[in-house]
Amino acid sequence: MKLKTGKISPKDLEKYVFKLVNYSEKTLLVPPGIGMDAAAVYLEGETLVITTDPITGGEKRIGWLSVHVNANDIAVMGAEPKWFLVSLLLPPRSNSKRIGEIMKEIKKALGEVGATLVGGHTEVTPGIRQPIVVATMMGVAHGNKLTPSSNCREGDYLLMTKTAGIEGTVILATDFYEELKDKVSRETLKNAQRFAEKISVVKEAVLIREYANAMHDPTEGGLVNGLWEMAVASGKGVRVQGSRIPIAKETDEICSILGLDPLKLISSGSLLASVPPENIETVMERLKIKNVRGTIIGRVTRDPGQKLIFLNGEWKKLCSVRDELWRFLEDKEK
Amino acid sequence: MKLKTGKISPKDLEKYVFKLVNYSEKTLLVPPGIGMDAAAVYLEGETLVITTDPITGGEKRIGWLSVHVNANDIAVMGAEPKWFLVSLLLPPRSNSKRIGEIMKEIKKALGEVGATLVGGHTEVTPGIRQPIVVATMMGVAHGNKLTPSSNCREGDYLLMTKTAGIEGTVILATDFYEELKDKVSRETLKNAQRFAEKISVVKEAVLIREYANAMHDPTEGGLVNGLWEMAVASGKGVRVQGSRIPIAKETDEICSILGLDPLKLISSGSLLASVPPENIETVMERLKIKNVRGTIIGRVTRDPGQKLIFLNGEWKKLCSVRDELWRFLEDKEK
Repeated sequence: MKLKTGKISPKDLEKYVFKLVNYSEKTLLVPPGIGMDAAAVYLEGETLVITTDPITGGEKRIGWLSVHVNANDIAVMGAEPKWFLVSLLLPPRSNSKRIGEIMKEIKKALGEVGATLVGGHTEVTPGIRQPIVVATMMGVAHGNKLTPSSNCREGDYLLMTKTAGIEGTVILATDFYEELKDKVSRETLKNAQRFAEKISVVKEAVLIREYANAMHDPTEGGLVNGLWEMAVASGKGVRVQGSRIPIAKETDEICSILGLDPLKLISSGSLLASVPPENIETVMERLKIKNVRGTIIGRVTRDPGQKLIFLNGEWKKLCSVRDELWRFLEDKEK
Repeated sequence: MKLKTGKISPKDLEKYVFKLVNYSEKTLLVPPGIGMDAAAVYLEGETLVITTDPITGGEKRIGWLSVHVNANDIAVMGAEPKWFLVSLLLPPRSNSKRIGEIMKEIKKALGEVGATLVGGHTEVTPGIRQPIVVATMMGVAHGNKLTPSSNCREGDYLLMTKTAGIEGTVILATDFYEELKDKVSRETLKNAQRFAEKISVVKEAVLIREYANAMHDPTEGGLVNGLWEMAVASGKGVRVQGSRIPIAKETDEICSILGLDPLKLISSGSLLASVPPENIETVMERLKIKNVRGTIIGRVTRDPGQKLIFLNGEWKKLCSVRDELWRFLEDKEK
């Protein structure tokens, strides 16, 4: 059924939203429902970690992504994702079934990260061209130890999991499939699309959080920006060995053809961690046992004026960069 | 400066966002900052109340409104608004100053309700025509007593504060000023625009929460929908005296001219409360002392099949209604 502007009807709410709520979840004192203004949860002397992030860029898997990008932000703080709220904005004349599809993706992803839907808002919004999902995730810190990006210490090893530009690789292989299919093998593109399955870093964050000082989820601007952000947040310098950063062959192939730098490509899926020397062996071991690729790519240094990356035979200044994906999209529009 | 697609720059973040954060707020363990993935707050055995709501409909005061509508949702649960997160989405080619304006409004409104900015996200989003603000407010319940809409008890008095359609009156007098100015006096329109100052119900919710079983913030669909929602959420019936619902003369005049029903007009600014008979005198007294207009408009009854409103001399069934504002906007587009 075509939806009208404004909040969705109580009938559609029941049909597409509420039936996905786990009402037996014990921490949820006040669950979502018709006319309910807010959710309530009980916390027993704990540190609550909260984040919000929108998914605005595409039609595919937005519900699923909205859970994972927010869960990543909670996990890198050293916390466990627990409670999820979502504002779902649909363009005029959307079909009500679209709500059901997005909510099903959300339900699936919540199961994957172990969190619960506690509230939200669903409406048809004039003036938007594509569905927009804005999510909030809350989590509880494990033993009250936090690992924010600002916690890098001098002498720490900088470690990353998996490979550079995972999220960007999925987006390029999906949204520009037609353009790429004559230049890249079908198999490479299919593999690249399946990188979507690697977007969560919750598993590896849980594995190593006890042993890390700081963790970070590099998103826009890729690894380069993520490393710069950790250094800025911590007021430290870094020395990064750029050539050690692993790049999947699918990412490499697609980026070469499109003329993009994979180190500056949106990188959800890779976890950055700042690990003290005494723990680095344990961390590498724990990742290896669980088959998560971990690579040491640099060190944290004292001087915040020295944020350096070694690339193509020379030390260069690390700085805040714009994502390659945005540059690419804008070049295409010209 | 014209903004580019994607997250805003670290420089703009510093300039327009971070300087508005109160870093000395003690409950905020991890404040917002460059490269910070999530916020963290500490809770000592408390009930946390959370809500999220977008402001999608207009250009004016969206930052200010995003705080108040979310603070209202927290307050009607019997909690105090404390921590605020915001996702700010701007259309392509927005000016960076717009961020500063919206953030200043947010700061002002946070001061009015006593809450703190703890995190968020700011980006330029392709495919949207107007700025969109999606906010999350968290609060802590006072003495763990909650007053959700679902808590109406048989025999309770139904009370409302102020007048019907406050929010809708502001929107109509602002967005349709040109259309109305030949038919309604300039003074009436100016007064109607000033109804914006009445949109918060935090003050009255704090005044009466100890004495109410349930409270609710009637938004889309106005008082009629708000009352229906409380009845549904509580699994109860209601008998509402429609003619007792106070309507401001500005609302009445504007609605008459546009052919709209003020009882079905978006009503943030009015608080609905379900109050047990033994407390109703106290509640009316407390409101009176603080100069908040309170009106008893009905009772809660046992049978959920009997949701009734007395209007124009007869009992009618209360049901879920679409907001008059949406109907009006769509009629205009035809």
